[in-house]
Amino acid sequence: MDNMEKLSILRVTAAGKSDIEDVVIREFPLTIIFNGDELVTMLCSPEDLKYLAVGFLFSEGLISSKDGIKSILVDERRGVARVESVGGSESADEVVFKRFISSGCGRGASFYSAADIKNQAPVKSRTVVSAEEVFTLMKKFQRRSEAFRATGGVHSAALCHKQDIMVFGEDIGRHNAVDKIFGRCLLEDIPTDGNIIVTSGRVSSEILLKVSKRNIPILISKSAPTSLGVKLAADLGITLIGFVRGRRMNVYSHGWRVSVDGKQ
Amino acid sequence: MDNMEKLSILRVTAAGKSDIEDVVIREFPLTIIFNGDELVTMLCSPEDLKYLAVGFLFSEGLISSKDGIKSILVDERRGVARVESVGGSESADEVVFKRFISSGCGRGASFYSAADIKNQAPVKSRTVVSAEEVFTLMKKFQRRSEAFRATGGVHSAALCHKQDIMVFGEDIGRHNAVDKIFGRCLLEDIPTDGNIIVTSGRVSSEILLKVSKRNIPILISKSAPTSLGVKLAADLGITLIGFVRGRRMNVYSHGWRVSVDGKQ
Repeated sequence: MDNMEKLSILRVTAAGKSDIEDVVIREFPLTIIFNGDELVTMLCSPEDLKYLAVGFLFSEGLISSKDGIKSILVDERRGVARVESVGGSESADEVVFKRFISSGCGRGASFYSAADIKNQAPVKSRTVVSAEEVFTLMKKFQRRSEAFRATGGVHSAALCHKQDIMVFGEDIGRHNAVDKIFGRCLLEDIPTDGNIIVTSGRVSSEILLKVSKRNIPILISKSAPTSLGVKLAADLGITLIGFVRGRRMNVYSHGWRVSVDGKQ
Repeated sequence: MDNMEKLSILRVTAAGKSDIEDVVIREFPLTIIFNGDELVTMLCSPEDLKYLAVGFLFSEGLISSKDGIKSILVDERRGVARVESVGGSESADEVVFKRFISSGCGRGASFYSAADIKNQAPVKSRTVVSAEEVFTLMKKFQRRSEAFRATGGVHSAALCHKQDIMVFGEDIGRHNAVDKIFGRCLLEDIPTDGNIIVTSGRVSSEILLKVSKRNIPILISKSAPTSLGVKLAADLGITLIGFVRGRRMNVYSHGWRVSVDGKQ
């Protein structure tokens, strides 16, 4: 299914009205059914739905590896993804109900839980990146983010090594774009350890949690981080780089991983 | 509590590293306890928390009027808002658990429910607005959105009449900014019927649902709508205006409410 939709709209200027054709980004409700239980309906871009479902279940701690997945069935027409885990008796109800009730569901935040943060081990990777590599990666990343340029409504994310993009994802939701990448990595055995995530969107606490779960040491954004994003990056051992624009950037935590002219 | 936080960060350019002071937007976890039940933990900007809690409960259908609220207690230090409804026996558990399980909790979408859309009556207001009024409102709105200009991380929303801003709200979340406005309107008896909402953020389906619940006929955004946003606006009788930039705009639905030189 295409991520965009053509529409006939009204262009209004001080001079008058005219009918024009425009393109808007598609918003699609996807319901995830896990081991027979209806878990969530998320609003997303209707692309890479299998990756999104798997990445979401991984981020929420409901699956932990490819081997843990028995089957995935995506029905695009009805907007449903059914995932069965191996030994499917682990009911989503029990796991999720507890989380809903004890820590709730943040808006724009998925199932935010303070417990998740405490249980997460810091990233230990000694990977370093040069300022030039960061500038070049961001340039490549922006060239790939065509949907954003066309409609102004999509977030992009990419898993990269120092020189290039490995996996690219887009979605109307910042979190979904990252989950799509991690879902694909899980299903296709693409290593994330020691690599880099680049994102177009604001960096808030939930993104840091997702990234730390994949043991990724460097997170680069075109946009701003939040205070809690910066705090988590520091605690979780992640180098957080924001506002990469032109030939400058802000480094909010673990700056030792960024080198300039060979110096750290 | 301030919406911003000062930090010492590393500025990196091709020439080298330097320590600078920077400002990031604060991200704050607020837990809402409704009639004794822990309902949700949302990530937000720590300002207007009372309005946010009330607006959220209204949007979710858990309270419907000011008279329905017995007490509101906000503990800023602990990040908790306790709201008791009149006849508080209506447990959030029953209402919300049903919604979680039957339709789930969309990320960035709060408690998205197809049933909400079907039950919502279209907005009938005959209010019209001129193109000049839209341009002027957007200019005033952008002047108010200082936090965004300072940090690039905040969304703004405003309730307006044709000539001016009545209520202004800011938050790291698009939905929260709108809920803050509606919470304040509810508590301070500010009428929303027939007025206008202006927002900085992308217009997706959940925003349309919130706006229709307050019987608001015109929604104006600096950004793009999604396909589902446009469809809901058409179905719910709302004039959806996007991409208001300089002296032009796109009208996605119910264009009869926008006039140019006195002509509709």
